[in-house]
Amino acid sequence: MALLQWQGDKSFICRLKFYVVMLKKSTFLLLAGFFISLFVEAQVLRSPDGNFQMEFSLTNKGEPSYQLNFKNKPVVLSSLLGFDLKNDEIDLLEGFQVKNSETSSKDEIWNPVWGEENQIRNHYNEFLVELKQVETGRIIKIRFRLFDTGLGFRYEFPVQENMGHFVVQEERTQFAMAGDHTAFWIPGDYDTQEYDYMESKLTEIRSLMEEAITPNASQTPFSDTGVQTALMMKSADGLYINIHEAALIDYPAMHLDLNDQDLVFESHLTPDSQGNKGFLVTPVQSPWRTVIVGENAAKILESRITYNLNEPSKIENTSWIKPMKYVGVWWEMITGQSSWAYTDELKAVKLGVTDYTQVKPNGKHGATTANVKKYIDFAAKHGFDGVLVEGWNVGWEDWFGNSKDYVFDFLTPYPDFDIDAVRDYAKAKGVQMIMHHETSSSVRNYERHMDEAYQLMKDYGYLAVKSGYVGDIIPRGEYHYSQWIVNHYQYAIEKAAEYQIMVNAHEAVRPTGVARTWPNLIANESARGTEYQAFGGSKANHVTILPFTRQIGGPMDYTPGIFEMDVFNGSHVNSTLANQLALYVTMYSPLQMAADYPENYDRFPDAFQFIKDVAIDWEKSLYLEAEPGYYLTIARKAKDSGDWFVGNVNGMAGRTGQVSFNFLDPSKSYIAVIYADKADAHFKSNPQAYEIKKFAVDAKSVLKQFSAPGGGYAVHIKEATKEELKGLKKLK
Amino acid sequence: MALLQWQGDKSFICRLKFYVVMLKKSTFLLLAGFFISLFVEAQVLRSPDGNFQMEFSLTNKGEPSYQLNFKNKPVVLSSLLGFDLKNDEIDLLEGFQVKNSETSSKDEIWNPVWGEENQIRNHYNEFLVELKQVETGRIIKIRFRLFDTGLGFRYEFPVQENMGHFVVQEERTQFAMAGDHTAFWIPGDYDTQEYDYMESKLTEIRSLMEEAITPNASQTPFSDTGVQTALMMKSADGLYINIHEAALIDYPAMHLDLNDQDLVFESHLTPDSQGNKGFLVTPVQSPWRTVIVGENAAKILESRITYNLNEPSKIENTSWIKPMKYVGVWWEMITGQSSWAYTDELKAVKLGVTDYTQVKPNGKHGATTANVKKYIDFAAKHGFDGVLVEGWNVGWEDWFGNSKDYVFDFLTPYPDFDIDAVRDYAKAKGVQMIMHHETSSSVRNYERHMDEAYQLMKDYGYLAVKSGYVGDIIPRGEYHYSQWIVNHYQYAIEKAAEYQIMVNAHEAVRPTGVARTWPNLIANESARGTEYQAFGGSKANHVTILPFTRQIGGPMDYTPGIFEMDVFNGSHVNSTLANQLALYVTMYSPLQMAADYPENYDRFPDAFQFIKDVAIDWEKSLYLEAEPGYYLTIARKAKDSGDWFVGNVNGMAGRTGQVSFNFLDPSKSYIAVIYADKADAHFKSNPQAYEIKKFAVDAKSVLKQFSAPGGGYAVHIKEATKEELKGLKKLK
Repeated sequence: MALLQWQGDKSFICRLKFYVVMLKKSTFLLLAGFFISLFVEAQVLRSPDGNFQMEFSLTNKGEPSYQLNFKNKPVVLSSLLGFDLKNDEIDLLEGFQVKNSETSSKDEIWNPVWGEENQIRNHYNEFLVELKQVETGRIIKIRFRLFDTGLGFRYEFPVQENMGHFVVQEERTQFAMAGDHTAFWIPGDYDTQEYDYMESKLTEIRSLMEEAITPNASQTPFSDTGVQTALMMKSADGLYINIHEAALIDYPAMHLDLNDQDLVFESHLTPDSQGNKGFLVTPVQSPWRTVIVGENAAKILESRITYNLNEPSKIENTSWIKPMKYVGVWWEMITGQSSWAYTDELKAVKLGVTDYTQVKPNGKHGATTANVKKYIDFAAKHGFDGVLVEGWNVGWEDWFGNSKDYVFDFLTPYPDFDIDAVRDYAKAKGVQMIMHHETSSSVRNYERHMDEAYQLMKDYGYLAVKSGYVGDIIPRGEYHYSQWIVNHYQYAIEKAAEYQIMVNAHEAVRPTGVARTWPNLIANESARGTEYQAFGGSKANHVTILPFTRQIGGPMDYTPGIFEMDVFNGSHVNSTLANQLALYVTMYSPLQMAADYPENYDRFPDAFQFIKDVAIDWEKSLYLEAEPGYYLTIARKAKDSGDWFVGNVNGMAGRTGQVSFNFLDPSKSYIAVIYADKADAHFKSNPQAYEIKKFAVDAKSVLKQFSAPGGGYAVHIKEATKEELKGLKKLK
Repeated sequence: MALLQWQGDKSFICRLKFYVVMLKKSTFLLLAGFFISLFVEAQVLRSPDGNFQMEFSLTNKGEPSYQLNFKNKPVVLSSLLGFDLKNDEIDLLEGFQVKNSETSSKDEIWNPVWGEENQIRNHYNEFLVELKQVETGRIIKIRFRLFDTGLGFRYEFPVQENMGHFVVQEERTQFAMAGDHTAFWIPGDYDTQEYDYMESKLTEIRSLMEEAITPNASQTPFSDTGVQTALMMKSADGLYINIHEAALIDYPAMHLDLNDQDLVFESHLTPDSQGNKGFLVTPVQSPWRTVIVGENAAKILESRITYNLNEPSKIENTSWIKPMKYVGVWWEMITGQSSWAYTDELKAVKLGVTDYTQVKPNGKHGATTANVKKYIDFAAKHGFDGVLVEGWNVGWEDWFGNSKDYVFDFLTPYPDFDIDAVRDYAKAKGVQMIMHHETSSSVRNYERHMDEAYQLMKDYGYLAVKSGYVGDIIPRGEYHYSQWIVNHYQYAIEKAAEYQIMVNAHEAVRPTGVARTWPNLIANESARGTEYQAFGGSKANHVTILPFTRQIGGPMDYTPGIFEMDVFNGSHVNSTLANQLALYVTMYSPLQMAADYPENYDRFPDAFQFIKDVAIDWEKSLYLEAEPGYYLTIARKAKDSGDWFVGNVNGMAGRTGQVSFNFLDPSKSYIAVIYADKADAHFKSNPQAYEIKKFAVDAKSVLKQFSAPGGGYAVHIKEATKEELKGLKKLK
């Protein structure tokens, strides 16, 4: 297969003219550069379906560059590649010549442990170019993989005589945009990802940045035009373009800094406290930089580029990794109704010194044995797998904002949390307890206690842990997404795997498909989750954007399922109840919470039935309607039951969508239960106005369904016998 | 006992005049301050023997202050106490009033696990003052303990409503000197203690600083007049004054910054990467600040203030803690004759990736099984307890200067080091192997591997570990002596205790008597050790100063015993051979190395006999002659045998000293073997000119003995029968 063609560098003639002029005043050195560049020709790689064309070339200065077209439309204009180095006189930017190149291709199917589908095709053509920097003799390789949904590429630094250790000052990867696209963006920040999305033209980012930077417990924005990945864009001519990274391992997380004159994004890595952006030792490679492209937004969601660019699972026996639906002692603290802390009397806590038996309980501690038993009862009654309990361990009185090194021991329960009794009660009820490790970003302290903490989980039968990294990192001056801290998150995942523990890390770096390699990473937060609905609210269209941005890298523990929108602390949840149900389908995660109080579910048992019914692991997923910021409709087939579930979330304006059920087996009949907004529903004024309808459906059915502002709908489609269908209206 | 007297503030009259003037233009606030200060009177504490008088008072601004006299001579003039805080508007410097005060006294004997003597008297009078800052309501306590050898005091921050967590911007403890003393100092530095000592007047420090700052692998000097503790000084009127700290736990190490106009030292704490100088949580206390004082220099060495101010041992069963005399595969690497690294082929090593079986050995790797067996044979033959092996584990090819996070795993031997065979061979020969953990200052990496590394030691029967912290700290920007890293050294000691492992930490923070509490900390380097004799040499009087400075805090693994002064790499050891022998007595340590090559000991078997004979644990120690920088003679009685050993080290000029043997049992007779410089010996030109003499001695004997420049002598005194004494000359 002719994956690759050598063709004349289109700009050759122009360059030649330039050289002639330059030669008149040139030195031998320039001349040498000239002769090298004379041999440079563009090298072209095509995607398996031929729609994408990636062109690699060296500029006249020997700078590596690439460009990407889709069906002859430019996606990425000619963009430079390279690195500024910290301790070397000569950067890795120019003076390169092509030493070697090779092409290959791959087409394979692999089966994820959990996921949106039970098999994933990894199909690409690859171009690997080996570049030699003439002056230094250093070798770098750039590996491009072109899929039918876009491009991935990374830098590789092989073992070599002239480069062993090096410090990155900055990665200088460009993504030159072909127009002033509409972008769904959040501010670039070294410490938080928990922003509401802005929708604007690229050229409007600068003027909107101040508005976009809303307060957070730890935040370090760095540029007026810096944004985070996954960055979702839409071009004027209808192309959807998504830039992210894959396989972020022991490397700083990448941001994109926009030159809004030229519309060129450049990589901006997260520094350490001294401004270093990566200490690398050969052999080593960067994470993959990805550009996912589609003619419609659904194509972005269909792409499996991010997972495909990660290594296969390093966990051999994955039988202990199981998707979970759970409830927990959490929303009541988030809304201020109860507290993580046991007492209000302690100005400061010293673990091992503070005697909790000598202080007065505050009377609103959430993680009491009695309260936890209530949640266990609820979970058992309604078939949930697990119960999360936050605030069970000593130290919450002063955990936040004090830069406290020894903040938690992850071992010692509060006096009113009987960990033995809870274990026994949960076991008797057939419910799994979910552990909680808030680190307060004191990462050394967590690592020091990690073995004991994981061992306690094993001893008490906890299968999964929710970890948290709230507040500024300790050691002070380090950032949440620097190489050193990214290395920590990975360490926690790999050590958890040794203990056969599943991890759901909050405030950790945004995922980049690492869950393929370490499938015990069953979820992350790493974005603005439901908690913000209790902190003043999120934009009502937030959930129509997250699947195109945050979820490109992996599942999010979004903690949906809020039924009472006016919460205890006075904040309002900007969502209708039907929208909350739809999230179990649209926000894919193998870990799904029903976050509201049991009492609120008891008030709406008919709606709650959907949360009980909905699956959490899927055979396949179909992206029926998709427009980031506006609407998203997904149908998924449950892995176990074969039931189908459809979810629609809607943006700020009411909308009636239409989806065909042609994904159903034409030879079968089904019952569809539709949980939808009423006509007068509204995320602000009337969020609980929902209706539940039941229809007989088949592969010829088409659902025309209204969704309110901030609304949506959820559908459960189950194969049915004629008996069961009797008397049911047929959906037209 | 009237420990404490209240007496009129001597400066009261002067202050009153000041107030009268000020009152004319005063505000109410000043007036309030005035009334508070009216109630301030000096409070006086005396040492048990009455020689010391410490006076505490508040200034008219409510600043805590103290002064110290010895036999009515001023030692510390009126000096302020307090803290700058980082995040609080009001510092802890002024506006205090005395809320309460109490006095107490203690007189106890305790027995160290190892030491210069087998019982230590802890005898002091104490004054504890509780101060309230009127404006903030904050409480601090200052606890003063006055011993017969000097003063210790510390700050205490009790649990209180108005202060829970606080960040120290700077500790503002002053030590106002009464004159332009002669000081033995090294530059204040956040990262190294490995300097040669300067001897100068305090006012000369500034002009000598540049000369004093010699290169080191990691160094961060901070001030033209900043020096380290323990700082040894001598006043014009013959007082010896030593300033240091005790019980440095989870707090930054203190330097002293000199105001050389006023001759006032002020504490200067080691910052973190952001300039923070301590994150404290109540209840908490500072380390003790100590001022040891004597009319002669020997009194400084007799003082046990540093240990007495530390907590008793937290290790209950200390039977596994045993002093050790050892040899090792070390000096041959230090001198460049062999290498830590296995190969010269690797530009960079990736642990777990690099395949050492595929590279060519460099042929000079020191830690080969064969070479180690040679050392084991030598240790067994000559009765040494242990053999240290450096460079046994993979990673030494690029361990230094690359800021490499995962630099060692502390587990994987090089292909030519058969850890099983070594274990078996050592066991068969009755020799203990000593582990080596070089961290390259990558402290997180060490902590991650610590459990496994210690467990490997247990599995292979290693009782002790030499750890190292060469190079800049990782995380980058942190310093060797900041709170966060001090906390790490302590973590390593305490975790080692869990495994019943003894620790000898090199490049760690200077000791402050913590070995009383954690007696498994059997030694530190934390100063310029013998290795510098192979790095260009140390001053020949270096070892006459170290006991007054570095060793105030605890034993030093100085690694003496060099017999061949012209070493392989061309450097010269500035010491005579007799001086090297004396170090086993003068440089107290429960861990003593015979550092030279076995071959060099074989060349001088008669002198080597002293190293074989000398004890390493003592019943008592007598400081017979002492003048820092010039000479030091110590006699010690061995704990087991009852033998006496005398060591004399000498400064730059030849000197004949005279010591009486009146410490011997008057009813007994002894043989003394004297290892001394010949008359023409000299550290530079004739270092190996020694002579060994044997005498009959008793309690009436007086030794008049010449020591060469950079020389010294060592004496072994053993009880003898008449039979044994027959024919021996009597020492006059």
